[in-house]
Amino acid sequence: MSAPEPKTAQLVAIGDELVHGSALDTNSKWLAGELERLGLVVRRLTVVGDDPDHLEQTIAAACAHADVVVATGGLGPTLDDRTREVVARILGVELEFHEPSWEHVRNWLTKRRRPVPESNRRQAMLPTGGEVLANTTGTAPGFAITIERARLFALPGVPREMRTMFSDHVRPAVAALDGLQPTTDLRLLVLGPSEAALGERLGDHMLPGRNPAVGVTASGGLLTVRIVATAPELAAAEALCEATAAELRPLLGDWLFAEGRAELPELVLARLRQLGHTLALAESCTGGQIAARLVASAGASDVLRGGIVAYHNDAKVDLLGVEPDLLAEHGAVSEPVVSAMAAGARERLGADLAAATSGIAGPGGGSAEKPVGTVCFALATPTDVRAWTLRIPDLGREFVRDRAVFEVFRALLQ
Amino acid sequence: MSAPEPKTAQLVAIGDELVHGSALDTNSKWLAGELERLGLVVRRLTVVGDDPDHLEQTIAAACAHADVVVATGGLGPTLDDRTREVVARILGVELEFHEPSWEHVRNWLTKRRRPVPESNRRQAMLPTGGEVLANTTGTAPGFAITIERARLFALPGVPREMRTMFSDHVRPAVAALDGLQPTTDLRLLVLGPSEAALGERLGDHMLPGRNPAVGVTASGGLLTVRIVATAPELAAAEALCEATAAELRPLLGDWLFAEGRAELPELVLARLRQLGHTLALAESCTGGQIAARLVASAGASDVLRGGIVAYHNDAKVDLLGVEPDLLAEHGAVSEPVVSAMAAGARERLGADLAAATSGIAGPGGGSAEKPVGTVCFALATPTDVRAWTLRIPDLGREFVRDRAVFEVFRALLQ
Repeated sequence: MSAPEPKTAQLVAIGDELVHGSALDTNSKWLAGELERLGLVVRRLTVVGDDPDHLEQTIAAACAHADVVVATGGLGPTLDDRTREVVARILGVELEFHEPSWEHVRNWLTKRRRPVPESNRRQAMLPTGGEVLANTTGTAPGFAITIERARLFALPGVPREMRTMFSDHVRPAVAALDGLQPTTDLRLLVLGPSEAALGERLGDHMLPGRNPAVGVTASGGLLTVRIVATAPELAAAEALCEATAAELRPLLGDWLFAEGRAELPELVLARLRQLGHTLALAESCTGGQIAARLVASAGASDVLRGGIVAYHNDAKVDLLGVEPDLLAEHGAVSEPVVSAMAAGARERLGADLAAATSGIAGPGGGSAEKPVGTVCFALATPTDVRAWTLRIPDLGREFVRDRAVFEVFRALLQ
Repeated sequence: MSAPEPKTAQLVAIGDELVHGSALDTNSKWLAGELERLGLVVRRLTVVGDDPDHLEQTIAAACAHADVVVATGGLGPTLDDRTREVVARILGVELEFHEPSWEHVRNWLTKRRRPVPESNRRQAMLPTGGEVLANTTGTAPGFAITIERARLFALPGVPREMRTMFSDHVRPAVAALDGLQPTTDLRLLVLGPSEAALGERLGDHMLPGRNPAVGVTASGGLLTVRIVATAPELAAAEALCEATAAELRPLLGDWLFAEGRAELPELVLARLRQLGHTLALAESCTGGQIAARLVASAGASDVLRGGIVAYHNDAKVDLLGVEPDLLAEHGAVSEPVVSAMAAGARERLGADLAAATSGIAGPGGGSAEKPVGTVCFALATPTDVRAWTLRIPDLGREFVRDRAVFEVFRALLQ
């Protein structure tokens, strides 16, 4: 493609807690997805602490190399919030007091019957020449300002405030730029081959510089083939993705078990909804993770009837109707018990389908016969109950649980 | 303090899926925490895509400004895995085939009865002069190599492989460096004041450049005061944190409701374990999130008896023994119903304590009387059941659920 040079973006997340490993920056991932769909190419995400010198270097470097920079964090009222003063320093300008922003802060706090400390005035100080970005869901106003070739948008770090202000201010400003090249993606979920075998099958599609680009990532036994296309219009980018998917599907054959733009739990819910099925869960070693991941999607309630976390054997007996004799004879981690759990959940929660897990996530609790990582699964339908067992490699409690959750999603999709 | 210049680290996470917003880099947060405890100061975390030019710029810049750089990702067998070739290009050296690594890859796959495609040979190619880092939990070997002033460690992006290789190779190499200054932290969890009011109370403790540093972050109504100290020995850093905490506690007074180095769910489990209590959960609008967050901690099973996700009214009746009349009269989102849910969960799961939630997370389902964000809570003990209602601001389904989960943790700590 002989397209013009694309418009680029960089993201900067600010906060000592992010750089010292005590909190995870989730804002930048969300922003990257939004900006790419709008038509910017995201080149780099950087996390930096509150130290003024490092913050200055990082913001200045991002602004020297991108058309749009979105910085999140460092706009609060406390002394460790330094984005305002650092941006002023980069531009060699003063901070100015912005009366309407101070009025907004005062009104916001007063309406909520909170005191209005003088220190909140810091939040109404903005670098001279900046455009104020109103915050309708919190106190801290943001600002937009031009540094070198870049338009810098400074937003608060609180995710809900950041998202609202992105929609209110950044999205319309970016959408008005010339030369946007929207990017979109499509995912093919693959189970079976090794990553290398899959790569060989995909061949030239994975060479660098192609559009659509095809990449492979591995996670908990699942391989994801991601097709990413860029075009002058979003619809054209989507068509490019679909054309490549049409080429790849025959290459993948039986390995392909799901596809879409959504995450796996949404795919599971969509499939069950389409088939008119309702679902119940009986979780032992997965401890509510399967339910939690499904419930994270809005509208889970039309499919998911409910779930029971039956950690103790008493709960398996009392809540799921598992016979005590069955437990005594086979143990909790066994196909007969997990089948009874699924059947009990299906009946008691009044669902068409029920899935159950029982296993040894570790670190303790393993034996020679049933080592850590042994997980039994069952799927109950109106006509039968099917049980099976996996020996998941003992690569930590989290790994065993994640793999078990994924196994249930996989079974529900098939 | 007139300490010598500290040793610094930078982290680079590599992968198109990370930069395009389709996956979240969690490795860097974990690595930052580990490196800081070992005694390095982490200055910056960068996420970059697979494009060879951007990757080269990013790795070279990190190595020019740090003593230790840990890069994760880009070591797989497919053509979009380019860390090896980019590092060779930075150093102006060739890639060499490393026979023992190839043998490891072949053995790993053969033992698992997987085919061994020739393309896996890519994983045994390493920049000349590099030290091979064995991977005991996957195929991709890593490598360590010196670029300018930095020692670069290249590890796979799969979290469990990365963590094992960090422990096997990076930790001992870093621990052998001179001039380490371990950093540790302590968190004080605060509920009540606004962020600005808290900042005023903490005063000079928050000025830049202090050791211990004191910072404040806000999340879902909870404020966290984080005390971070650096010293030549970890024990001395811990003592500095404790000394500052002793100064802050009287300033915080009743606002302080919990403290420790752990995350909130671990603090809840530790408190209940200490008091000898067992817990049952009955979750409606939180949909298993409370159970899931507790079960994420190893050893939850001695405290958590189990949980019931009772999304539908039928489940509230059948599994928790809520009277249908009570539901008809008051509705599911009401204090009488949530009290009955807690009492039912306590009795049926045989626990000392039970917590229950029922609310309207949105986006639909609200009314004038019970708008989206209305959540009822109950806590049942051997002697009574206490119910209360929150009107959580309607800032999205996720926000309402997170705030509700936090409310239950807060109640259990008090």
